Amino acid sequence: MTTIEQAFRELTQSYMSQVLTSMDQAVEAAGLGESSLKAMLGYHLETGGKRLRAILPLAVAQSLGVAPEALVGFGAACELIHNATLVHDDLQDGDEVRRGKPTIWKKFGAPQAINLGDAMLYLAPICLEQTRASVDGRQRVLARIFRDVLKVIDGQEREFALQEGSVHDIDPQAYRQMVRGKTSGLFALPMAGAAELCDAPAEVVQALEVAAGHLGVLFQIQDDILDLYGEKGRATFGSDLREGKISALVVAFWQLADAENRRRLMALLQADRQATPDDEVRWAIEAFREQGALAECLADIDRLRGQALASEAFSAYPDLRRLIEGMAQIFLEPIRDIMEVQA
Amino acid sequence: MTTIEQAFRELTQSYMSQVLTSMDQAVEAAGLGESSLKAMLGYHLETGGKRLRAILPLAVAQSLGVAPEALVGFGAACELIHNATLVHDDLQDGDEVRRGKPTIWKKFGAPQAINLGDAMLYLAPICLEQTRASVDGRQRVLARIFRDVLKVIDGQEREFALQEGSVHDIDPQAYRQMVRGKTSGLFALPMAGAAELCDAPAEVVQALEVAAGHLGVLFQIQDDILDLYGEKGRATFGSDLREGKISALVVAFWQLADAENRRRLMALLQADRQATPDDEVRWAIEAFREQGALAECLADIDRLRGQALASEAFSAYPDLRRLIEGMAQIFLEPIRDIMEVQA
Repeated sequence: MTTIEQAFRELTQSYMSQVLTSMDQAVEAAGLGESSLKAMLGYHLETGGKRLRAILPLAVAQSLGVAPEALVGFGAACELIHNATLVHDDLQDGDEVRRGKPTIWKKFGAPQAINLGDAMLYLAPICLEQTRASVDGRQRVLARIFRDVLKVIDGQEREFALQEGSVHDIDPQAYRQMVRGKTSGLFALPMAGAAELCDAPAEVVQALEVAAGHLGVLFQIQDDILDLYGEKGRATFGSDLREGKISALVVAFWQLADAENRRRLMALLQADRQATPDDEVRWAIEAFREQGALAECLADIDRLRGQALASEAFSAYPDLRRLIEGMAQIFLEPIRDIMEVQA
Repeated sequence: MTTIEQAFRELTQSYMSQVLTSMDQAVEAAGLGESSLKAMLGYHLETGGKRLRAILPLAVAQSLGVAPEALVGFGAACELIHNATLVHDDLQDGDEVRRGKPTIWKKFGAPQAINLGDAMLYLAPICLEQTRASVDGRQRVLARIFRDVLKVIDGQEREFALQEGSVHDIDPQAYRQMVRGKTSGLFALPMAGAAELCDAPAEVVQALEVAAGHLGVLFQIQDDILDLYGEKGRATFGSDLREGKISALVVAFWQLADAENRRRLMALLQADRQATPDDEVRWAIEAFREQGALAECLADIDRLRGQALASEAFSAYPDLRRLIEGMAQIFLEPIRDIMEVQA
């Protein structure tokens, strides 16, 4: 276990119950104590997960010498927003299971999944009110919440647009832009937002935002690799390909492939989710590896890790630098075997 | 045309373009200028509508002697929130047409309707930033936005719960609570929120909130009546009954009906939307009138109108009182014929 993993574990043990209490207080403050929304929220949160968005702000505070407890409300806000996107995502993607339990839309119906996600988006700012920080800091972070989450929603929108049958060319720029929106915002918010609440210098806030951007893309490429080459516990292998998702591997392969292979890949992506032939999924998994798409993605990951650590603002904050290094390591743990085989 | 109708029309002519500009500025500030979210927002807003949520805050400001222009950003925020609920509602209810145009989910797909509604919820607070008001007032109104909209979402949740096949008894209290959440919050926000931004005395803010609560229920009962006894321009008559909605008329009839009629009504509500027999819908429409449910609803409307105007806080603000009177009149205009026939 890395030092950062250990630190995350300790923060989780010390503060996670306070984070959940902060959410409960927001539910009560909004008069939702008797509402089924509360029950649905409880059901969804019990599915567990890493609670990374809740813990990250506390880890940043600790690295800046601020008591993590002060940022409990912000951790709750980030965790709620992340989970709002998961509840809506599961419905959008038609995913029926999350961490072994039926997803919200599957259990309570699509309308209630929309309601719950909406409610979580507006419970988050109420949690932020409970954060111990300057009024000014809280206001700036509130504005950041809206802007960062809008970038995430924009990324979602771009993902669906990329997935539409009308795609004729696969553009690495469009992929990168989609991922930056979809994934990076939900790392930038807890990291840069926490620094802002701790009244860190502007260049540190900025450096964390940039680092979170690179880490988010790194995380997503890792996730794309895992879907094809790992055992992710998903019901079927290669579910991204079956869903027609433009993944990092699809983008890398597209750049390397000849016309015939491009045509074959496109047919696979455009096939109906239920009707995608297993043989074609297996072909793609092999072809991505043999023709260098996997190697290209792994090289990308190395570049991104370097870029995340590159800012000079971290030289005065070695603990922050260690935090980012540790996060990259945690993110890449699930594909460590794949990285070693390729190296 | 009433004086208030005339005032609304003038406010619309003078400020509506500024309200729309405020939304555009929020879209740009969030970096969504190039996003398809912007295009979808434009498409949805072009469906028109009364823009009541945008104009109400300006009317309240005017009644309090404050320049309406100061509250343009708040009008934009209220209009965005209202339309976010419409975009998500249409998807939840499966409604394919809004004001003669395909709804967002019908035109762009369900995932994009979820994305657009989510985006509008977070664009609204950015518009509020553009309001000319004290920092303190803006902060309080921002907190009000989250709490009022959470009540609306809770009301939505209750509506779906009431609609479930598991309902064995129809409870007037549950109906009232559902409507208070679903409809009243989106009147309380623009009215009480506007008073707060204008630094009106606390008892005036409170009185507006109470009045908006009554007006919201009045509006909903009117809407329920219109669906059965008016020509609402909906594709089929009695669509609430076909959708299995618990309307004010259903609640009133339930109180008056014998066991056989209750059974018959319940069978109608629980029938599949597409398979609801026209004859049974016609039966209910007649039975509601003959057995006094319609009269009971109209009497309720009279009571609610009186309650909306009852606060002593309005005695020092005759213009506010006139505004509320005028709103009730505007809301009841579509069912004026029905009211006259029954009276």
